[in-house]
Amino acid sequence: MTTTDRPPDAAAAGDDPFDPRLDPAQADGFLDMDPETFRASAHQVVDLMADYLEGIERFAVFPSVEPGSIAPLFPASPPEQGDPLDAILDDYRRLVEPNATAWQHPGFMAYFPTTASGPGILGEMLTAAIAQNAMLWRTSPIGTELEGVVVGWLRQALGLPDAFDGLLTDTASTSSTIALAAAREAAGIQAAEQGVGGRPDVPRLRVYASTEAHSSIEKACMTLGLGRASFVTVAADDEFRMRPDALASAIEADRAAGHLPIAVVATLGTTSSTSVDPIAAIADIAEREHLWLHADAAYGGAAAILPEERALFAGWERADSIVVNPHKWLFTPLDASLFLCRRLDVARQAFSLSPEYLRTLDRASPVRDYNEFQPQLGRRFRALKLWMLIRWFGVDGLRRRVRRHIELARTFSGWVDAAPDWERLAPVPFATVCFRHRPPAIASDEAALDRHNAALMDAVNRTGEIFLSHTKLNGRFAIRVSVGNVRTEARHVERAWELLQVAAAEVHA
Amino acid sequence: MTTTDRPPDAAAAGDDPFDPRLDPAQADGFLDMDPETFRASAHQVVDLMADYLEGIERFAVFPSVEPGSIAPLFPASPPEQGDPLDAILDDYRRLVEPNATAWQHPGFMAYFPTTASGPGILGEMLTAAIAQNAMLWRTSPIGTELEGVVVGWLRQALGLPDAFDGLLTDTASTSSTIALAAAREAAGIQAAEQGVGGRPDVPRLRVYASTEAHSSIEKACMTLGLGRASFVTVAADDEFRMRPDALASAIEADRAAGHLPIAVVATLGTTSSTSVDPIAAIADIAEREHLWLHADAAYGGAAAILPEERALFAGWERADSIVVNPHKWLFTPLDASLFLCRRLDVARQAFSLSPEYLRTLDRASPVRDYNEFQPQLGRRFRALKLWMLIRWFGVDGLRRRVRRHIELARTFSGWVDAAPDWERLAPVPFATVCFRHRPPAIASDEAALDRHNAALMDAVNRTGEIFLSHTKLNGRFAIRVSVGNVRTEARHVERAWELLQVAAAEVHA
Repeated sequence: MTTTDRPPDAAAAGDDPFDPRLDPAQADGFLDMDPETFRASAHQVVDLMADYLEGIERFAVFPSVEPGSIAPLFPASPPEQGDPLDAILDDYRRLVEPNATAWQHPGFMAYFPTTASGPGILGEMLTAAIAQNAMLWRTSPIGTELEGVVVGWLRQALGLPDAFDGLLTDTASTSSTIALAAAREAAGIQAAEQGVGGRPDVPRLRVYASTEAHSSIEKACMTLGLGRASFVTVAADDEFRMRPDALASAIEADRAAGHLPIAVVATLGTTSSTSVDPIAAIADIAEREHLWLHADAAYGGAAAILPEERALFAGWERADSIVVNPHKWLFTPLDASLFLCRRLDVARQAFSLSPEYLRTLDRASPVRDYNEFQPQLGRRFRALKLWMLIRWFGVDGLRRRVRRHIELARTFSGWVDAAPDWERLAPVPFATVCFRHRPPAIASDEAALDRHNAALMDAVNRTGEIFLSHTKLNGRFAIRVSVGNVRTEARHVERAWELLQVAAAEVHA
Repeated sequence: MTTTDRPPDAAAAGDDPFDPRLDPAQADGFLDMDPETFRASAHQVVDLMADYLEGIERFAVFPSVEPGSIAPLFPASPPEQGDPLDAILDDYRRLVEPNATAWQHPGFMAYFPTTASGPGILGEMLTAAIAQNAMLWRTSPIGTELEGVVVGWLRQALGLPDAFDGLLTDTASTSSTIALAAAREAAGIQAAEQGVGGRPDVPRLRVYASTEAHSSIEKACMTLGLGRASFVTVAADDEFRMRPDALASAIEADRAAGHLPIAVVATLGTTSSTSVDPIAAIADIAEREHLWLHADAAYGGAAAILPEERALFAGWERADSIVVNPHKWLFTPLDASLFLCRRLDVARQAFSLSPEYLRTLDRASPVRDYNEFQPQLGRRFRALKLWMLIRWFGVDGLRRRVRRHIELARTFSGWVDAAPDWERLAPVPFATVCFRHRPPAIASDEAALDRHNAALMDAVNRTGEIFLSHTKLNGRFAIRVSVGNVRTEARHVERAWELLQVAAAEVHA
């Protein structure tokens, strides 16, 4: 047959080799939303998005709903026939928006704020349309190479040397899992190949982190087959920082017991109090003991873009791996976690498999396929939104905002310190303040103070204007105010303090 | 102080307790893109998205670029000052779009197509703006409860009983990791607590899947600390389906060797040839041997929305867990993987940790916190885009599209069968055809055939009109045509066949 022929059985089957439904007039029954409808719909959706963000303070930060009350508002079974977009967007406005926790609300000061900046949202929009799967270079040349560029940009902004290479993952949980998988591999037991179980030659592996470390470290130990029993919590000092002497003792005791220490995780900005482990002293021990040193700076790391805050991080450049989450305090829409590593080849050993159908055949140059460094194969094109927002803010613009949040939090902290019946419960190295109300009548009754502060936080949260979360520090209930939302202004921080006063007066009365 | 007081040190510090930069006139230096700029910018971005999708066929499906050629187009260091959006979008058009693999292109027939439908993209847009972290009920009541609704909708659309509960994860890699972590837990060795290493009481664990199983299963074994050595590949029959007799023998041999079989993975739609393991026979063995049965239907599962295809799946309702990826063949933007499980409490045992700062205190009813069922803490609000696209297409609309792709692929398969010098290398249970060109001159030289077909695929891919991928079947190079793009019309499938003819004529000549 010649090159202009129709497919071979076309003539036999009639003009159209496909079934009658292939009639172009009916094609939309098989295809996507048509392009013009998409364009008009997307403009409509933009107005919904912009209205939401512009009017975000109309919503309660935390909605007043009870668990189980929302699901019954939706049909229990899927619709058989499609609905027009207007009906769907009406339901979105009616059922979705008011039942969301308003992370974008400037009064959101709970957990660690994770806000989506304007340029970050624009990045997500383009990401959805260009629809890359950045698992292989071949499946997304731009996704792969721009990721390398953005990882380099972030590394430089954080003041880290070019010995660190890395990738973007979904969450700090994944980044820290990669770190500990690499540590497991670096221990020389061929864990990826042989596993850690059923081997008389492999002792119990041990991973160290402070009592204040994030739950994701312990969870990574569970995931990786080390078990919670392999996770050793090291005592912290009275400012919630890992005690290097306690770390050294724990390692010594474990070696004496025949266990195999493989990694230590230093936290730079713990989740409860944002304390900063003394990473230089920990790095000394890690080097001496040949442990993988992972720095969990998922929250605090963003502050390293500020030269004046770098002293807190001194020594982190000696870590084997570091995680910093742009989706926490760099205004990037969830998800985006930066994993940096001095020994990325070890991470690759832990996760690389190259079956035939994923191999790139037609290119001579070496190709980086990022899936080889992480548990998942499929990968979103996360570099795009980061590229866009770094371009739009500039590093200087990011710095000004992070610096501003630190100022706001320290001002709040000053109010707590100056108020007679309030007590700050931890230092404020970043932009999170832990404190409690301690009225004289119950000042020495810890159980009563816990109940009192829980009630007080609840009263503030029920106003819907401000949303706070809590933790326990030395067993005491601590209210947390975390400033990190790119929309938070001074008036919101003032309002939080005001509402706490109101609540304290009322709850106490 | 009274409730209307200013913060305590406000008077002392001047009218504004914050530093002078808090002047509202300068506030935008600290805040997000202002709302009006965001609205205008987002409309601008929508036109860029719509232009891209409308003109997608102007782009080569796979761009003609070499590895390492793209990164140097971007500055090696991040910008200190921000750029206007117009400059960023110009660069997007100039540097990003032409260097992307065009997954949205109707000529994309490589791997498994993963397209983002219009309503799915609209869903991602809203997801970015409402910015939920669906890790806890409290951090997203709607994210949590709508996920329950959508999981139920998908389960029903797939024809599965309500004994299956589940969640949405990022990828099949994660879903299958959860499945095998649950299997590890179900083996009664308290793996999450005690780990699988350093324990004389724990034998080698064994996981079974066919030689055709996806690499994510082997990678999950690596991640979970079982090691590649724990992954047992079971022989397949001449249609690439797991042989139940070989599975039974492998289990028997392992038990005799003192190993502990814990799970078997049946693949319903393998990545190479989309073969379907005989899951009913495998379920019999799993039940008898007390193994966790996981059904990897990441690709093929979408076809279960068609009643006429259900026979292929008979027996999967007996699995302990199932993965189906809406981001593969249900037109959902990456990422979205559905994990269904009969014993979700076991998955929870494998991953649950509830530290104080994540506890919900003020609600009486039990709360579902989805992070307790998966490796990651942070979670995107994936239910929203699925809700929107199921609403917009209706289940019937999804069915018509999946059915259409199967028809197109079977028509293509008919052409291969009818053409004298072409050879189909596997059955076509879904919408993927594996085949090769086998011209008489080299018909009995397997090495020459491999080279010939690799060259032929490369020639087609270099046209930019169609993008195909390959695999090996019984050691033979097989070209794959996978129809699953929601924008693919009959003319694209015809064109693929035409280009293959052209290439065969030219490469062979």
